[in-house]
Amino acid sequence: MSNKTGFTVAVVGATGAVGQQMLKTLDEKNFPIKELKLLSSSRSAGKKVEFQGNEYTLEEAKPESFEGVQIALFSAGGSVSKELAPEAVKRGAVCIDNTSAYRMDKDVPLVVPEVNEADLHNHNGIIANPNCSTIQMVVALEPIRKKHGLKKVIVSTYQAVSGAGWAAVEEMKNQSRDMLDGKEAAPEILPVGGDKKHFPIAFNAIPQIDKFQENGYTFEEIKMMNETKKILHQDELEVAATCVRLPVETGHSESVYIETENGNPGVDELKALLKDSAGVTLKDDPANQEYPMALDSVGLPDVFVGRIRKDLDRANAYHFWVVSDNLLKGAAYNSVQIAESLLKLGLVKPS
Amino acid sequence: MSNKTGFTVAVVGATGAVGQQMLKTLDEKNFPIKELKLLSSSRSAGKKVEFQGNEYTLEEAKPESFEGVQIALFSAGGSVSKELAPEAVKRGAVCIDNTSAYRMDKDVPLVVPEVNEADLHNHNGIIANPNCSTIQMVVALEPIRKKHGLKKVIVSTYQAVSGAGWAAVEEMKNQSRDMLDGKEAAPEILPVGGDKKHFPIAFNAIPQIDKFQENGYTFEEIKMMNETKKILHQDELEVAATCVRLPVETGHSESVYIETENGNPGVDELKALLKDSAGVTLKDDPANQEYPMALDSVGLPDVFVGRIRKDLDRANAYHFWVVSDNLLKGAAYNSVQIAESLLKLGLVKPS
Repeated sequence: MSNKTGFTVAVVGATGAVGQQMLKTLDEKNFPIKELKLLSSSRSAGKKVEFQGNEYTLEEAKPESFEGVQIALFSAGGSVSKELAPEAVKRGAVCIDNTSAYRMDKDVPLVVPEVNEADLHNHNGIIANPNCSTIQMVVALEPIRKKHGLKKVIVSTYQAVSGAGWAAVEEMKNQSRDMLDGKEAAPEILPVGGDKKHFPIAFNAIPQIDKFQENGYTFEEIKMMNETKKILHQDELEVAATCVRLPVETGHSESVYIETENGNPGVDELKALLKDSAGVTLKDDPANQEYPMALDSVGLPDVFVGRIRKDLDRANAYHFWVVSDNLLKGAAYNSVQIAESLLKLGLVKPS
Repeated sequence: MSNKTGFTVAVVGATGAVGQQMLKTLDEKNFPIKELKLLSSSRSAGKKVEFQGNEYTLEEAKPESFEGVQIALFSAGGSVSKELAPEAVKRGAVCIDNTSAYRMDKDVPLVVPEVNEADLHNHNGIIANPNCSTIQMVVALEPIRKKHGLKKVIVSTYQAVSGAGWAAVEEMKNQSRDMLDGKEAAPEILPVGGDKKHFPIAFNAIPQIDKFQENGYTFEEIKMMNETKKILHQDELEVAATCVRLPVETGHSESVYIETENGNPGVDELKALLKDSAGVTLKDDPANQEYPMALDSVGLPDVFVGRIRKDLDRANAYHFWVVSDNLLKGAAYNSVQIAESLLKLGLVKPS
């Protein structure tokens, strides 16, 4: 179970929708793993998981599980991260946390490597992986912001169910079958497992992701708004989000409106800019009906951008459509990219 | 087949998704029908349709079919309206056209009764029923515009498949079954029957409704933008749309951003305003997870508005969520309302 050189890596929440993609990404990227620890809740402990031809038994995540761990990837819910990430840090691990627990903590870098990799230098043991819907948007925004500045962003999301976990995907599939058979759908999870009411997602669109805040925005919307400003280091950026859950298994889509600060680039200029940007795949040829779609994004690490067009009323305003696999670039892939960046920058040393 | 008093009414396209809802609405509203003519393409001619306990045989729509007709409701595609509406007018009928054929014709009123009923006085025989996604939006916008003025509107739509007809709904259902069974989806209709490429709609989101124009916008988007200005009589209004098709059978949803012209009403003020507005049902109580959803709108004539909230950056800016049954208020119901308005205003006289 160990290579000659490499890192001791722990994955917390290894059986979840994101955890599984983390293992797949570590494998595909051939991440230098010397030893792998797969950790989980007590409920999943004892389950077997295969990785690179070896079978691993999930252990219950406890403070002492992190002894000797250099890199810990967390994706087992905010409360697990809150409890165990500090314990892992105490034991010398660098934690890459995919929950919202630490994202807005001023001592925790919130990182999308294509955008703000250098923020990793300021880490104190914990690095936060942004919200899925935030990541794909900032990857598309940053090249434009860097060249033309950004004044305002308005985004309406079209989010996939896998962002709420496998049980929610099963719920969507069961509801779909029931409704196709003319039966009533029985909602138990969505829109938010821990909220009071549940609504069918099959053949529906639910304008609620995460719980409502006092100001009428959902926490998902607030996350997008605050995280975008933090990642782009632009507190005064105007950002507003409306987050909507769709009957799509995987692949978040976003309708984005922006106003640039300086200059008034043409659509061709924006296309050229995005085409050459890290992490972005431009798919924008209306004449040939080429544009990004959720189904086409599944399993790919790219952020797909298309339907770029000028606002017909304001000179410095544009609309576009951003799609990405919410479990990959939106979560697992970005987390592993952060781990790679830590290695590249010498912020974690092999044991 | 005839009441004692009332009107001779023709429905063109009576077997289509909208045509069926027109008959249902005429029935439910107990519209004063003296004689009913159900017209169709030659393909559907001979089919039997029941209305108020009587069986009708569809006749092929021809110029002479409109002899004696006072009100003709068209919903059989733009080319049928282009060919036959002038023939119906020549024979004394007032045509209410649900296609895009005449909407931007300066001699044709484009009417949503709650918004611009008075425009009916200027009709020359043809009245256009706006695009489904436009109607529900302007019903929500008009009360705000009247009191506070409107400067800018940005809308991202979440549109149902029934807007593309029953065959598209069948395609979505078949694809859904196939994909749930792990089979490939076989797209043949969506996003646009007459376009080159077809994509699966099941478990997907397609950012194309109608064909692309030279400027990168789809015709559906251009329709929303131009029709909104025409209905609200405000050419200088800034309107931008992104139109997206979802795997929803019926019920269009819209994420709408507005900037008002005068004043800076609070959310409570906007809620009170919309609560008392014709055609609007306010459903906006985040604390109790009350907001409009497509599935809840099916079969109801209302335009549901919720999730009203202030933009956190600009003083005069707001976001909200608008949902309506695209076949009813978005099409059939609005068409029959126009017919009722014509009667009320004395613009059609009983025979």
